[in-house]
Amino acid sequence: MRAIIISVGDELVAGLTEDTNAAYLARRLGELGIEVAAHHTVGDDRRAIAAAIASAAAGADLVLVSGGLGPTADDLTRQALADATGCELTLDSRRLADIEEFFARRGRTMQPANRIQAMVPAGAESLPNAMGTAPGIAARLGNASVVALPGVPHEMQRMFDDAVAPRLAGGGGCIVRREVHCFGEGESDMAGRIADLMERGANPTVGTTVSGGMVTVRIVSRSASRQEAERLAEQTVVTLRQRLGQLVVGVDEQTMPAAVGELLRRAGCTAATAESCTGGQIGWMLTSVSGSSDYYVGGVVGYCDDVKRKLLGVSQDLLSRCGAVSEEVAAAMAAGCRRLLGADWAVSVTGIAGPAGGSEKKPVGLVYVGLAGPEFQAVHHHILPGSREIVRLRASLTALNHLRLALVAKER
Amino acid sequence: MRAIIISVGDELVAGLTEDTNAAYLARRLGELGIEVAAHHTVGDDRRAIAAAIASAAAGADLVLVSGGLGPTADDLTRQALADATGCELTLDSRRLADIEEFFARRGRTMQPANRIQAMVPAGAESLPNAMGTAPGIAARLGNASVVALPGVPHEMQRMFDDAVAPRLAGGGGCIVRREVHCFGEGESDMAGRIADLMERGANPTVGTTVSGGMVTVRIVSRSASRQEAERLAEQTVVTLRQRLGQLVVGVDEQTMPAAVGELLRRAGCTAATAESCTGGQIGWMLTSVSGSSDYYVGGVVGYCDDVKRKLLGVSQDLLSRCGAVSEEVAAAMAAGCRRLLGADWAVSVTGIAGPAGGSEKKPVGLVYVGLAGPEFQAVHHHILPGSREIVRLRASLTALNHLRLALVAKER
Repeated sequence: MRAIIISVGDELVAGLTEDTNAAYLARRLGELGIEVAAHHTVGDDRRAIAAAIASAAAGADLVLVSGGLGPTADDLTRQALADATGCELTLDSRRLADIEEFFARRGRTMQPANRIQAMVPAGAESLPNAMGTAPGIAARLGNASVVALPGVPHEMQRMFDDAVAPRLAGGGGCIVRREVHCFGEGESDMAGRIADLMERGANPTVGTTVSGGMVTVRIVSRSASRQEAERLAEQTVVTLRQRLGQLVVGVDEQTMPAAVGELLRRAGCTAATAESCTGGQIGWMLTSVSGSSDYYVGGVVGYCDDVKRKLLGVSQDLLSRCGAVSEEVAAAMAAGCRRLLGADWAVSVTGIAGPAGGSEKKPVGLVYVGLAGPEFQAVHHHILPGSREIVRLRASLTALNHLRLALVAKER
Repeated sequence: MRAIIISVGDELVAGLTEDTNAAYLARRLGELGIEVAAHHTVGDDRRAIAAAIASAAAGADLVLVSGGLGPTADDLTRQALADATGCELTLDSRRLADIEEFFARRGRTMQPANRIQAMVPAGAESLPNAMGTAPGIAARLGNASVVALPGVPHEMQRMFDDAVAPRLAGGGGCIVRREVHCFGEGESDMAGRIADLMERGANPTVGTTVSGGMVTVRIVSRSASRQEAERLAEQTVVTLRQRLGQLVVGVDEQTMPAAVGELLRRAGCTAATAESCTGGQIGWMLTSVSGSSDYYVGGVVGYCDDVKRKLLGVSQDLLSRCGAVSEEVAAAMAAGCRRLLGADWAVSVTGIAGPAGGSEKKPVGLVYVGLAGPEFQAVHHHILPGSREIVRLRASLTALNHLRLALVAKER
């Protein structure tokens, strides 16, 4: 099966709004084993949309269109689809009732303009929108299925899940998606460990994506029964945990800050941060989780040596002798922070984020991570590649990962 | 003039890599007054690329292609362009010398595979790449100009500046771009103040984009002489500064953290941060600027009340009486932080980032910003819309903006 994705919107064509829908749909189709041949983006122009749909339907089995289903004069996907299929728009009274109810539930009256949203080309099917007023449309054009989805990402995603994915799921109508977040190894090394699971056409399908040093393994299982699809996906999660061991940070919503938080919560422990080159990024990450005040007490950004000395108790002798970016100072920062803030654990980072400040002995990217915990202390060092921004991001994630591994080891 | 943009790459079609090139090129063309009719994304497939180029050239005056110019077997834009134009690939010896020199400068030997990069369809022009090994190609196909650019964003952008924009600049061969970063008002309000400057077809062209609460006004001037283009752009920068006053944070590279840093540097002052709901984000932003250790000493993340009390000296009485999210606590955090870290200025933030923790009197999004400086103290409050992530981002930028305005006022 071959698919083409069309995005509709003047703002997208002008580059003023980022199109996340096309990439999202492409990934979802890929997970279902459907090859995407091309994406097209066209403006709010009825003829251009109709031409794009007709041309795509001539070269693909499946055409997914997003955008242009709103109630205003520049929303023209519905009309263009009618033009392309050569069918008149007709009213779907069930959808009209849905839209009226959507407004009624919010204590508002439906505007006449919204009536157009209940129209579909004759013979096409209207798809309910669980999140908004714009129903989708499923039509046939030649040998192709054409599905028009709303442009608002969360509405589009929900409709894809509810009405599109099940039809595409081959033998099984139920699809379960899981994500396993990993850290500590490159994508190609990780993919090597699970190559057999990543074979094309397998069920579940398994693939990897990378973002900011985190490698996420995506699992998609299909089956006629939800229970079986869930079992298949869970089985793969278990296999991945066995194969990847401590590289696995967490599953689904459990990204790095949530995973560290969960370990702290389980241990009944608190944590604090002492940051130099990351400037507060680790604290910011930990507090991205709602409820993190249960285990994160706070931190010190010791950007200048004076703060490292006065607040964190790093001695001037150590700073002069070893330099602010050193194993010794990282250890002292963590120990001092733990003492100062009265936390069970403290993690520290000191490093050279660049682009200036590097030397032959201490190059840009050199980062020390210090850990202090109950009868525990350690310092790790890394040389991280990339721009100032990337070095800092990786340093923060690396620091959290060391804290995670220390907490995991304590659990055993 | 009508343009179509084509992006080439299997990773893009599969949605695994974000395509930033198409939107970038669309914005740049828009600034030059060139209408973009559509974007197309195709995989690393010679026939598909050739078909996309031929079809685009039939419907547009200008076709910009990015990607597929590398030296490996899956880089096929060069061959596809030869197919589309019906011309054989021939060697451009000048470009071959460029590529050999690129490797020689890095002490490396050119691999035979790179030789293909010096090939262009007969009759087409090879465009030098100032940042990498992949030259671009400018060709004619029917009535359209087709320009192939490398896929690596910074190489593509530089080549667009050097070789494409000047040809498209109409009367004037020189183009000057400036950016004016603003904060404190919504995009539509701001656009209202400068509507006359934003008229289509003007020189310079003026447009706005928004990202994370910052509104950036983009200026593009065109003239036969660089000096005149620079004068026109500078004149518009001056006009914008007059119209927008203190909404203007900075120009070009001077985004919020750099603007605050420049003001501190000019005043010979240091600053410190006391963060609760932002968890370290303000410190992280300030230290995104290389050299920020000249004026940023560090900070305290006082996420739990205990740290606010012990480190920042906020009294238990105040915390009990007013609550951690209050004008009084914001003021005490800033004053305590300034004292503790011995900085000239301190900025504090305490608020309710959500989604939990809101009440009728103190809703999610309520944020207090405290400032303490030389004979100066102030507290501002805001109710910021959006998700936890967005509230925290806006709170951090708002805090830096208050510090900026206080520093500007002191300069007068």
